[in-house]
Amino acid sequence: MDIYEKMKALSITLPKAPPKGGVYAPAKRFGGNLVYISGCGPSLGEPIAGKLGKEFTTEEGKAFARNCMLNVLAVLEAEIGDLRKVKTAVKILTLVAGTDTFYEQPQVANGGSQLLLDLLGEDGIPARSAIGVNALPGNIPVETEVIFELL
Amino acid sequence: MDIYEKMKALSITLPKAPPKGGVYAPAKRFGGNLVYISGCGPSLGEPIAGKLGKEFTTEEGKAFARNCMLNVLAVLEAEIGDLRKVKTAVKILTLVAGTDTFYEQPQVANGGSQLLLDLLGEDGIPARSAIGVNALPGNIPVETEVIFELL
Amino acid sequence: MDIYEKMKALSITLPKAPPKGGVYAPAKRFGGNLVYISGCGPSLGEPIAGKLGKEFTTEEGKAFARNCMLNVLAVLEAEIGDLRKVKTAVKILTLVAGTDTFYEQPQVANGGSQLLLDLLGEDGIPARSAIGVNALPGNIPVETEVIFELL
Repeated sequence: MDIYEKMKALSITLPKAPPKGGVYAPAKRFGGNLVYISGCGPSLGEPIAGKLGKEFTTEEGKAFARNCMLNVLAVLEAEIGDLRKVKTAVKILTLVAGTDTFYEQPQVANGGSQLLLDLLGEDGIPARSAIGVNALPGNIPVETEVIFELL
Repeated sequence: MDIYEKMKALSITLPKAPPKGGVYAPAKRFGGNLVYISGCGPSLGEPIAGKLGKEFTTEEGKAFARNCMLNVLAVLEAEIGDLRKVKTAVKILTLVAGTDTFYEQPQVANGGSQLLLDLLGEDGIPARSAIGVNALPGNIPVETEVIFELL
Repeated sequence: MDIYEKMKALSITLPKAPPKGGVYAPAKRFGGNLVYISGCGPSLGEPIAGKLGKEFTTEEGKAFARNCMLNVLAVLEAEIGDLRKVKTAVKILTLVAGTDTFYEQPQVANGGSQLLLDLLGEDGIPARSAIGVNALPGNIPVETEVIFELL
């Protein structure tokens, strides 16, 4: 199954690529066949604001990280036209806005990397760092940036 | 106009590359024609200390992010000798030290990426993540790291 | 002296590569001869929990950053089989969990980059960003991710 067949089997529809929130490129090609996708938040329409350990639980955060990744894939598709051109995900950085005592960043980040595993397979799993921060743009709870390698 | 002519037209003079603050390379070539510039702070001489949402406003933060980028460009020029060798800016990470309720990181980061737009043009705009953190080295308010691609 | 001879001279024994803490690849090749090592914590066995400026001093943090780098090198060796294949370290990101008034992230990060200097020499020193955050996974005090370039 190619990635679009997998998306269909998993009932995944990509959102529209999110609007830019400033002076930057949503996606940037470099180094031959690499693409950097700018940090994406979890909103699929309505704004989402709040922090892990306060307004949101780890399970909610996991769903948000998955939504961040859906937005990342939407930006990637808008850039390259066809997600079947993706060779692998190289690296993700998952930023989790939380209280000073929220320590489950990896569990949150899994929501995004599991989606990559589902869609790209074992060879598509990226390296990762998952970290906590005290605040993200517009008070979004999770933000994810990704490097992809193309075929 | 090349980048030096644009700098002249915009009355921009690059600062001296900032001194190193530890055991690391200010600039590092890799992957053929890529260069990583280590995180630079906003000081152009006098130390700057404080946080967004407390000691500093968003507008001040934006000016700091621009100064970070001037330092980045100074480090890059010291590394490659001639900024006309720059093909594009690939990615920037803008870190904004702020209170737990400061959420205007993108507006701050624009100060740096707008300078890249002014000097490198539309094709020079990088991918970006802009995030909040609770503390940066020496209590600087903003720090920026950048990947460039050379011709 | 090659890297293994240097390790012997410095009485350095690599730990076992740490167990994965989620859905990600501990190491990921990309862009030809580059390798991304996922964020590693400082534990060499027993869990380490706490923050800089509170439970831990800068000196302790520096030792933790060195331990993070030992874990990074263990993951790298598990991936590539032989550390003599390393050309250089490209970039490190050192994340320091601390109080809102802990500002010595560079001094902490030096513990890791000094180890790279000792083992890879001047040409092996990477670009770096060192930043503070309010919380890391499992309340670890330091986390480090690294990009290496192979021969």
